Amino acid sequence: MSFAEATAVQSSGPGRYAGEILPGWDIAGNANGGYLLSIAGRALADATGRPDPVSVTVHYLAPGAAGPVSIDTRVLRAGRRFATATAQLHGTDRQLLSVLGTFGDLSTPDRDAPTLVSGGPPELPAPDDCSAAEPGELFPPPFMGKVELRLHPDDSRFLDGVRTGTALIRGWFRLRGDEPTDTIALLTAADALPPTVFNLDLPLAWVPTLELTAHVRRRPAPGWLAVAVRTRFVDAGFLEVDGEFWDSDGSLVAQSRQLALVPRPAG
Amino acid sequence: MSFAEATAVQSSGPGRYAGEILPGWDIAGNANGGYLLSIAGRALADATGRPDPVSVTVHYLAPGAAGPVSIDTRVLRAGRRFATATAQLHGTDRQLLSVLGTFGDLSTPDRDAPTLVSGGPPELPAPDDCSAAEPGELFPPPFMGKVELRLHPDDSRFLDGVRTGTALIRGWFRLRGDEPTDTIALLTAADALPPTVFNLDLPLAWVPTLELTAHVRRRPAPGWLAVAVRTRFVDAGFLEVDGEFWDSDGSLVAQSRQLALVPRPAG
Repeated sequence: MSFAEATAVQSSGPGRYAGEILPGWDIAGNANGGYLLSIAGRALADATGRPDPVSVTVHYLAPGAAGPVSIDTRVLRAGRRFATATAQLHGTDRQLLSVLGTFGDLSTPDRDAPTLVSGGPPELPAPDDCSAAEPGELFPPPFMGKVELRLHPDDSRFLDGVRTGTALIRGWFRLRGDEPTDTIALLTAADALPPTVFNLDLPLAWVPTLELTAHVRRRPAPGWLAVAVRTRFVDAGFLEVDGEFWDSDGSLVAQSRQLALVPRPAG
Repeated sequence: MSFAEATAVQSSGPGRYAGEILPGWDIAGNANGGYLLSIAGRALADATGRPDPVSVTVHYLAPGAAGPVSIDTRVLRAGRRFATATAQLHGTDRQLLSVLGTFGDLSTPDRDAPTLVSGGPPELPAPDDCSAAEPGELFPPPFMGKVELRLHPDDSRFLDGVRTGTALIRGWFRLRGDEPTDTIALLTAADALPPTVFNLDLPLAWVPTLELTAHVRRRPAPGWLAVAVRTRFVDAGFLEVDGEFWDSDGSLVAQSRQLALVPRPAG
């Protein structure tokens, strides 16, 4: 099944959509947060009539299990270039996500706009020389079977007890089966890499995301995305995760930032 | 008038609040976006029963002029530590802001949580050796009379035509009259500095913010905040502005990120 099918929604009333959290997109039974955001993103793209998320924020209210979901959208403003809307995504018994987003049409990049780019794609060995994150029963989670991730060998030895001491994970991302990464799939990419803090001296435990914001600059060129996620401040019980997403043309396609809770030692 | 008074809201029905955009908090007639967010923040703190914004995102729908506003809040989830809610802020004739936020109580910092801090406050001369941004009729804008800003002399000569070439502005921030900066005032601080791109070879023009997200880690200690805002990617017609806010104890109190539109040359 394609990613497009796995995130599809159907109109079920004015501003209302029905979708489904499919089995296998989970991490220890809870659906990946980026995958959930992509489902809400499909509803918002339809509701606003704009295909591309420009800035999208999600707050996670409860973990999502496989099963049907409903999404209530509300368009707050539809302007010439952008439209802003909210989405409330509910599972069978409770609300899972609240989303606020501005959507647009990124099919024709603004090539005349001034440009200043300080930074570039992360240094990465070729995808075949990286560590394939193949899914296990619990970890690596089933979700890893749904997308293709190749992690920088230096950053991905935490399962073997080797931590770099730097809260950085670099890798390649693409959808399976050569399906192009559209801008809605970038919302899944934004939450696809393992927690940065697995490379610190912290428990390899669930790192609950309170909130994730993704900014999409352009539609990705075909091929692998080069991704870097890093954390600079594990402090006061919170940590931020900043992601950069570069396409095969070497262009920045998206940035992301999460606020998450610091995992605590058991007991 | 204190900042607390300038951002005060009164309950006007279930989940509903009345407030006022005061004259003088504007930039060329449009109220500062951080100030508007603080008004919505007061409503959300009351609606959730939690005093401190932990993660707040605002999308700006229309510029706000001085006058009455109404704020409709909706609490989506109230948990043990956090509560998540939305706020729609309307002026007299249209919606100005849509806000999604998670609030909590940061009065007792989690001192046992693991800590890793990569980075520190920006290098700044003492406040008295910085450039006071005193308000003019148009620029510096009237807003500058409502808060105290002292900018790094190296970063603040763009009005004299001296651009550093680096999209970075550092400075000190505090409220006037020794009023303590509470966590709601941090939302104003998050949008208080001049646009980073004024230090690039771009027009000194309005830089419209589509979206701003602030993460608050802790309540600031009394005194000046050291602030740095920087932009790494002016690309595809958009730019991000990343802010860091450090209190007088040298602790990170907040991070912010905006997505804005690149100002274009006139004509």
